[in-house]
This record gives sequence, structure tokens and C-alpha cells, in this order.
Amino acid sequence: MIKNDLLLKALRGESLDRPPVWIMRQAGRFLPDFMKLREKYDFFTRCQTPELATEITLMPIKELSPDAAIIFSDILVVLQAMNLTVEMKDGVGPCIPNPIKNRKDLSNLIVPEINEKLGYVLNAIQMTKKELNDKIPLIGFAGAPWTLLCYAVQGQGSKNFEKAKALCFKNPEIAHELLQKITDTTIKYLEAKVNAGADVIQLFDSWGGLLSPNDYNEFSWNYLQKVITKIQKIAPVIIFGKGCWFALNKMSFSGASAIGIDWMCSAKNARYLSGGKITLQGNLDPSRLFSPIPTIKNEVNKMIDEFGKDRYIVNLGHGILPNVPVDHARAFIDTVKEYSIIK
Amino acid sequence: MIKNDLLLKALRGESLDRPPVWIMRQAGRFLPDFMKLREKYDFFTRCQTPELATEITLMPIKELSPDAAIIFSDILVVLQAMNLTVEMKDGVGPCIPNPIKNRKDLSNLIVPEINEKLGYVLNAIQMTKKELNDKIPLIGFAGAPWTLLCYAVQGQGSKNFEKAKALCFKNPEIAHELLQKITDTTIKYLEAKVNAGADVIQLFDSWGGLLSPNDYNEFSWNYLQKVITKIQKIAPVIIFGKGCWFALNKMSFSGASAIGIDWMCSAKNARYLSGGKITLQGNLDPSRLFSPIPTIKNEVNKMIDEFGKDRYIVNLGHGILPNVPVDHARAFIDTVKEYSIIK
Repeated sequence: MIKNDLLLKALRGESLDRPPVWIMRQAGRFLPDFMKLREKYDFFTRCQTPELATEITLMPIKELSPDAAIIFSDILVVLQAMNLTVEMKDGVGPCIPNPIKNRKDLSNLIVPEINEKLGYVLNAIQMTKKELNDKIPLIGFAGAPWTLLCYAVQGQGSKNFEKAKALCFKNPEIAHELLQKITDTTIKYLEAKVNAGADVIQLFDSWGGLLSPNDYNEFSWNYLQKVITKIQKIAPVIIFGKGCWFALNKMSFSGASAIGIDWMCSAKNARYLSGGKITLQGNLDPSRLFSPIPTIKNEVNKMIDEFGKDRYIVNLGHGILPNVPVDHARAFIDTVKEYSIIK
Repeated sequence: MIKNDLLLKALRGESLDRPPVWIMRQAGRFLPDFMKLREKYDFFTRCQTPELATEITLMPIKELSPDAAIIFSDILVVLQAMNLTVEMKDGVGPCIPNPIKNRKDLSNLIVPEINEKLGYVLNAIQMTKKELNDKIPLIGFAGAPWTLLCYAVQGQGSKNFEKAKALCFKNPEIAHELLQKITDTTIKYLEAKVNAGADVIQLFDSWGGLLSPNDYNEFSWNYLQKVITKIQKIAPVIIFGKGCWFALNKMSFSGASAIGIDWMCSAKNARYLSGGKITLQGNLDPSRLFSPIPTIKNEVNKMIDEFGKDRYIVNLGHGILPNVPVDHARAFIDTVKEYSIIK
């Protein structure tokens, strides 16, 4: 039914002439049209207005023609829906004026009705699906419960999320209750996203790699596994954990259809650690898009050679950076499309 | 000659009743006496006044009795000595008002005479050695050339050091010239430190883990290896690279006597990746010192069991955090000292 179904085929492990390609954060800060729109509407207006979210989601499709769209939104809308105030300061990032410090703060958080609190995301998905007209698949996403806890407790972005970790290590029972509430909300939210039309779900555990393997199991993986177990029944799941090389093997048995790989893990290590059979996605260093275009083309070809063209989805190793020239992003995508021709 | 030579024995791979223990950044922000001194003297006054650097180096020895001292200083004094202005803003971190942007900036950097530019560090080492009176060994240190490049180009601390990486990827030849100048300075500096009395040298590559394995080889490892090759002839070297799990095998063949391990790499993985024979140092998550003391004691005992008591130096997986209660740090060290009794 979807005309360009390369992504879906790669997620099923089918052999392809070339791998599919999309870019994490492709609907974002490096696109001049996005920057213009950003001057007129603040962050959450862009997220909460389905027409704007749809327009932004489609911008990179028109500009770069990747093999998948990803709905424009933010992982923190889930915390907002749970009754936490989240502000987004341009140039600073997210800010939560009243972060979770104790059981009382925790008791103010709800597991919301998704239609009531996050209906705008579902509307954006329906509107985008209509506009895409089955040309390419649409990816929906959520943050890992652990990554959301990091923001909910720290109150802002951070290098080490020390307050978040201190809460976990001082009061693990509060951390676990918070993680369970986020997990319950995330499962309902992702089920609603799939029902609204999302073809694939990606889970982002941006801060899983800040934990030791044991603490990762306790505070991140346990909850991610619950989400994957539920969602993989209704849509293919891609699980991406930045810095989580030590968990790749476990991820390969989780029910997820693919694992996102960051750029610190070589293709060889990623295939070895994940058991060699599951589809992998990644992993060019986002900063590598500052290289001259011929270097980008070389790096992309080398990357496909190393991962192999099958069971593979080309992407960056994390989100695209602001200030990347659009033609560098285009060279990244076009090189993948030319891959079968070069060979 | 040194009375408590557990660290030196562990670096030679000798079998011991219990492993030695020290804490990265032990001469620092978590100590109340240090905080008092900080009110009176700014950062570089503390570094540049041998009496103060000695006093600070000895504070954790008196307070916690670890098995080694590490000279109080900062990795950025090397950039200062090369003629780059470095300011340290309390609560913000390092700031370099005129970072390296191009070849002209680079040409202003010198490979200095160590006695002339960094004599204060050598004096602090001599003074500290005298005070220590051969009770425990003294560790000297330097940043990896790559980590120093990060600051020299970015101009300040950063999550991803994107400007630094962009320079490397846009103008690799400038990056390599800068790295070579830093390497030449670092070798002279560390030779002078050993001559002044440092018994062991630790190299800190705090930002090596921001690079892909290929880029790490090109921009970090090549230069680290040059430093190790020279310095291991005159003192045992500990090489610590945060996030550099992918380089552990290479590190084990480098001539270093030990490898520092961060907390994202389990003992089992660290032993496997490093080949099982070299001495390892680490690796409790610094945030774990916020746990209650009985939990800390459990974690430390488990860690020694997992690494094994031989070819092992107990430490954190990175520097101790501010706000860690002193008695939690003491529990960390005392648990190691009690290890042989427990068994």
C-alpha cells in the first residue's frame, strides 16, 4: 500500500538493492524554511498546531526526499500531558520550573487520557498521513521512560543529569514509581499514535548511556522492554539508545525490529554485539556533515559497505545539527540512493 | 623506598591482598577545606602557587588516606603555557576568549620551555614529594592532545564540542598541526613532571569518546600513542579515555601500565576488551556516591569481586562530583581497605 516501502522491508529483514535512508531530527533546525517558521511560532505552538506540525514534517520530504517521514513533535510532550510544566527556551532547551523532587511532586503527575491531552499529535499524524498519500512511511516516536525521568527530575538539559541520578540512587522507590507512570503513559500514547496512522515507532533513549550497565537494566531497560513488548504487537519498533553499546545484545532479543546505533560503535562492533541478525540503523557522526561533500560521499559509501546493504537503515548516529548546510544533508541522502548504481 | 607502594605494585601486575584505591579529582570540590580555600584564591592562583597546590594535594590524604596522591593542577595549564589565554569561571568552567579558528591563530601557539612556563607545577611536585615523605606515590597528569584541542577550538566546555569537531572535519591539516604542537608540549611537560618527582603519570582523554572509532584513531589515538611511547620509558602510565571502550584493546598494547575504565563499561567487558592481562582502574559511577553508605559498601565489594583483586586499582569511573558527602567518599576508600578482611 505504501509506494516506497524500503524502510518497512528493511525492518522485516528483506534483501534490498540499497538500504533506506532518513535522518534523525530531519524536520528541524538545519532547514531554512523551518527557521523562518520558528520566528513566527514558539516551540509548543509548532508542536500543538497540527497544521504546523504537518508542514514541518513535510519540509525535509520536499527538500531531501528521504525514505521516511518522522512526525514533528518532542519527547517532552509526554511529561506535559502528565501535568508537568515544560517550557522550551530557544537556544537553551527545555526547562521544567517545578521538577520532581519527592513523592508529593510525583503524586501530582497523572497518567492522562491521550485523546484529551495529546490529541494534537494524533491530529498531526492523521493530517500528515493524508498529505504523504502513502508515498513513504511515517515514523512516530517517544522518549524512553529513563530519558524522560532525566528531564522531569533534573529540570533541564545537563551533561551528566546528576540530580536525576542522585534521586535514583538515594530514593530508588520514588524513581521506580515515576518510571512506571511514564511507562504507562508512553504505552497508551504510542498505541494511539499507531492507531492514528504511524507506520513505525522509534524509541529514543538519549541518556541511557549515562548509566552503568547494572543501573541501566534497573532504571532504563526494564521499562523500555515493557514499552517494546506492547508496541511491537501493533507496529515495528526501532530502539535507539545513545551510548548503550553494552545493551545491544539485550535489545536484539527485545522484540524490536531494529536497533539504532550511535557513531561511537563501529559497524563491525554493532553487528557483533547485536548478534548479526537484527536490522541496524545509523550511524554517521552528525558532525561529519560539516566535512566537504566528497568526504561525506566517501564516508556514506564506506558505512554501507561496513554495515552491509541488507538489514540496514542509513541514518546519522544522533540528530542532525543546526548549521549543517542543506546540500550536505542532501549529499548524505543522495549517496545512499546512488549506492546500487555505484556497485 | 615508598612505604605504601600498593599502586606501583598493581601497575607492575603483582598479586596483592587488596587493590590500591584513589579517587579522580580527590583534591577538589567535595572537600570542605578546599571550598574554604577557594573563597580566598581564584583557580589559577591555586594552581600557580606551589604552596597552595601542595596544601590542596595533601587535603584528601589527611582526610581520606587513599593509596596515592595526585598533584592539584588542571589539564588546561598546558594550553596557557602555549600562549593561549585560559580563564576559569567558578560555576561555569574554563573559558578561552580567543579560541583557535585558523592557521594564523595556530601560528601564535608556541611549544614552550617547561621550566619557564610551567615551573610552578614542577615546584608543587617537589614540595608535595617532600611533604609526602615517601608515604604514598604521587601521580602527575596531563590531558590527551585531543581533549586539549577540544577546549582550544571550542573555547569552553560543551556537550558535543561541535566547533572542535567541525574544525577537524573541515580543516584536518590545521587540526593535525595543532595536535602535534600540543603533543610536543605534553611530552616535554610530562618528562619534566617525572624528573620533578612524579611517580606515575595519568593521561586524561575526557572527550575521546565523542569521536567515532576511525576519527578517534586519526585525531586522538595517534597522538596519545606518541605521548605514551615516550613517557612509559621513565614512569608507569595510566591511560583513561571516557567513552573509549572501543579503544581498550589498542590501549592494552600501547605501553601503558594500566587503563582507566568508565562506569559504562562493566568489569567483564573491560577485562574482555582489554585482553585480560593489563591492570585496570575504575569504575564506580561518581553519582553512585550519593547512595546510602551501606549501598556504597556493597557496590565497592561487588566491583572488586568483578574486576578481581589483582591487576586492579579501585577508583571512580570519572572525577568525584561536588556535593558528595565526605563520609561517603571515606566509605568508598575504607571498603577497599577492609576488602581482605571481609574475604
